[in-house]
Amino acid sequence: MKQFLTLNDLPDFDAQVALAKEIKSNPYQYEQVGRRKTLGLLFFNPSLRTRLSTQKAGRLLGMDVMVMNFSNEAWAIEYEDGTIMEGLRSEHVKEAAQVVSQYCDVVGIRAFASLTDKEKDEEEQVLQKFIEHANMPILNMESATAHPLQALADALTLKELSLPKRPKVVLTWAPHPKALPHAVGNSFTRMMQHMDADFVIANPEGYDLDKRITKDIPVLHNQDEALKNADVVYAKNWCSYEHYGQILKTDNTWMLTPDKMALTNNASFMHCLPIRRNVVVTDGVLDHPTSRVIQQANNRTFAAAAVLKTLLS
Amino acid sequence: MKQFLTLNDLPDFDAQVALAKEIKSNPYQYEQVGRRKTLGLLFFNPSLRTRLSTQKAGRLLGMDVMVMNFSNEAWAIEYEDGTIMEGLRSEHVKEAAQVVSQYCDVVGIRAFASLTDKEKDEEEQVLQKFIEHANMPILNMESATAHPLQALADALTLKELSLPKRPKVVLTWAPHPKALPHAVGNSFTRMMQHMDADFVIANPEGYDLDKRITKDIPVLHNQDEALKNADVVYAKNWCSYEHYGQILKTDNTWMLTPDKMALTNNASFMHCLPIRRNVVVTDGVLDHPTSRVIQQANNRTFAAAAVLKTLLS
Amino acid sequence: MKQFLTLNDLPDFDAQVALAKEIKSNPYQYEQVGRRKTLGLLFFNPSLRTRLSTQKAGRLLGMDVMVMNFSNEAWAIEYEDGTIMEGLRSEHVKEAAQVVSQYCDVVGIRAFASLTDKEKDEEEQVLQKFIEHANMPILNMESATAHPLQALADALTLKELSLPKRPKVVLTWAPHPKALPHAVGNSFTRMMQHMDADFVIANPEGYDLDKRITKDIPVLHNQDEALKNADVVYAKNWCSYEHYGQILKTDNTWMLTPDKMALTNNASFMHCLPIRRNVVVTDGVLDHPTSRVIQQANNRTFAAAAVLKTLLS
Repeated sequence: MKQFLTLNDLPDFDAQVALAKEIKSNPYQYEQVGRRKTLGLLFFNPSLRTRLSTQKAGRLLGMDVMVMNFSNEAWAIEYEDGTIMEGLRSEHVKEAAQVVSQYCDVVGIRAFASLTDKEKDEEEQVLQKFIEHANMPILNMESATAHPLQALADALTLKELSLPKRPKVVLTWAPHPKALPHAVGNSFTRMMQHMDADFVIANPEGYDLDKRITKDIPVLHNQDEALKNADVVYAKNWCSYEHYGQILKTDNTWMLTPDKMALTNNASFMHCLPIRRNVVVTDGVLDHPTSRVIQQANNRTFAAAAVLKTLLS
Repeated sequence: MKQFLTLNDLPDFDAQVALAKEIKSNPYQYEQVGRRKTLGLLFFNPSLRTRLSTQKAGRLLGMDVMVMNFSNEAWAIEYEDGTIMEGLRSEHVKEAAQVVSQYCDVVGIRAFASLTDKEKDEEEQVLQKFIEHANMPILNMESATAHPLQALADALTLKELSLPKRPKVVLTWAPHPKALPHAVGNSFTRMMQHMDADFVIANPEGYDLDKRITKDIPVLHNQDEALKNADVVYAKNWCSYEHYGQILKTDNTWMLTPDKMALTNNASFMHCLPIRRNVVVTDGVLDHPTSRVIQQANNRTFAAAAVLKTLLS
Repeated sequence: MKQFLTLNDLPDFDAQVALAKEIKSNPYQYEQVGRRKTLGLLFFNPSLRTRLSTQKAGRLLGMDVMVMNFSNEAWAIEYEDGTIMEGLRSEHVKEAAQVVSQYCDVVGIRAFASLTDKEKDEEEQVLQKFIEHANMPILNMESATAHPLQALADALTLKELSLPKRPKVVLTWAPHPKALPHAVGNSFTRMMQHMDADFVIANPEGYDLDKRITKDIPVLHNQDEALKNADVVYAKNWCSYEHYGQILKTDNTWMLTPDKMALTNNASFMHCLPIRRNVVVTDGVLDHPTSRVIQQANNRTFAAAAVLKTLLS
């Protein structure tokens, strides 16, 4: 594997989840694998879980880790080819990517969607330009359209739950005051296509995710109907994909409440965090024993360690 | 010890100072103690000494250290329970604390006083919420009301000085252009209650520290009288506690000068740093051989290492 | 060597380049040299190459590395002696330098020129004050007037090129929309005085570098003439030294183009990066196989490791 931009890059999804599980059972077993190897983590956006869990994952493998907040610690980057760079951007990604390659064996990058220009966001300019110009593996730490480390951690979490043979899993849109990207929704959807489950997506009209990703997965516009008999409820907000970047629905009728959860089969509640309490979900749901959000966060470390091990080998 | 919020959390103060001294004499003797353990340092405020000395202390014990400037690298944190999080704060401390727990074996936190709301500052919301929700030991790297790592380093410094059997130690308020917290004054006062010394506090009227901390320690409002025959002078500014957050005195009559120091028994001069020269103290006092401020800064490493060792065991 | 402020501090320039080359051939051969030693890197300005390569260099030697963005993570520093510190600056460099010394075995510092006050810039206040007050070696990670780690990496790069016995090397000024410091130009010039080469400097009138550094090196004000038969072209912008901090020339006639490079002896193109494409140099030159800019960036690691090894011994 030369890059981990989406789950599609994994040579073997099941083996990767199994590796994450194995590392979790004995976290330092591969601490020689990354010896004398350097992991560079470049953040163009804020991060808590990804920042700490990916550092930790690198250390589990014995790697040296260098963390940079690229936006304010280095130079503003130009991504377009052929431009006359006389404005604010003082370094071109062609150089930046190659330079970082000189010091690192794997480079993780976080670069969120703008949510203003769909085409540009879908080009995944930052990640793709680094992949194009860097000489070493690139690790997606959440890009405009994908958050595969989260999805892999979510897969591990699902494997750990006591679920029926073919569980019903619902990815449901939930309210949020800000326009949020589709990355987590996309990657969770991609991941579920590897799982033996009855998977449905629930979102209000106008909020359908990219059809090229959801394919023939049922998309319901009635949350209550979707939640019925669910074994797992994965909540997440995203802005409209069709009316790109817009917020179409501002009421809280899709907030996850105990009443909503009562429709389910005592479902586990999942969310990637950070989560806005009493906006996306009520305290009652999040503080209930069926909430798995902390377990998900914990599994980020082992998902990242598994991916790093694969990228290094 | 499950947390180190104030000196009162120490199981044995004298043993802790002795451990710090032992580590100083042979700094890497415990480098196996923290092997495969992770120290997370979360800064909500600026830091020089604490940032570097606590990192160094972690490394002396062989720990992996992850440093975060929480305010600008992660998400804005909500601390109140039951709020509808539709404002600027996108993550609740309930999740943040539990999440950080997943990646760290000890978490250090720096969160200064607001100096606008006494009650809230005294609740020590940030530290207490992390203690409540995190699953691992919390280390106070200066909170609203306490700076116990500094006080422990100061205790070690006092032990290293050649002092009379029962020295006279004076904690004296000194001028400063900004309103500063009471944390250092409080912790030094708490620490002195463990020492065999003639300890007095000198501050202008209106600047008395919290009586629940100073208890029956003499508080003088006449600096010259307090300084007489002192063996150690510890200078520190704080704002009014009674008129919370206010600056009541703006002249420089309490600045520590050679003339003031001439009243003492050739006293050692101490301060936690950073210090404003010729405002808190004149150059002549700070540059005099009796100044111990750098020794205090050096001892921060060993105090932190001793506390980390205790938190890990 | 007690400090590395300029190349003049090196006890033996050739031996230092040879050491860098040796480390490049086997990067971890000295990983015991820095064991239990701490490298502190203090950044007062942005950095990409220096930040990552110097961290990496420290790790190659087995050092612990602590990185600080001094300007926003710590306190504002006062550099003047005798001032009454009642303004925005809350810590004096006297304390800051001594304090950092307590935690580090080597301290790297980046502090750019102001370009507003020539005399002050030439005093190299930040570096010199740290050298004066710190107790351990100081490493210049680019100061107002020198960038010796870059020059040492450039020397290694020149050694690696297949050049004629006494190559013609041209340092040429190039256009830039912002006023830039003289540090790289100065250090490259100093470095070339150690090389057996036909070295000339080309810059527009009014842009001559400090004569105390260029000494009797030919300075041409005609770029085309300078480039004739060059084996190496090192491009770099700097603002006027004579009319300190000013931009005198705003057209692009000195931009490095394929036509300009056609005047040379198929010259290698060098630049310290970051570089503004199609302002300093056209894409055609930078993307040509004769461009060595990435090799230069790579060599930063080994130059820094060599200097750190010398500073530690």
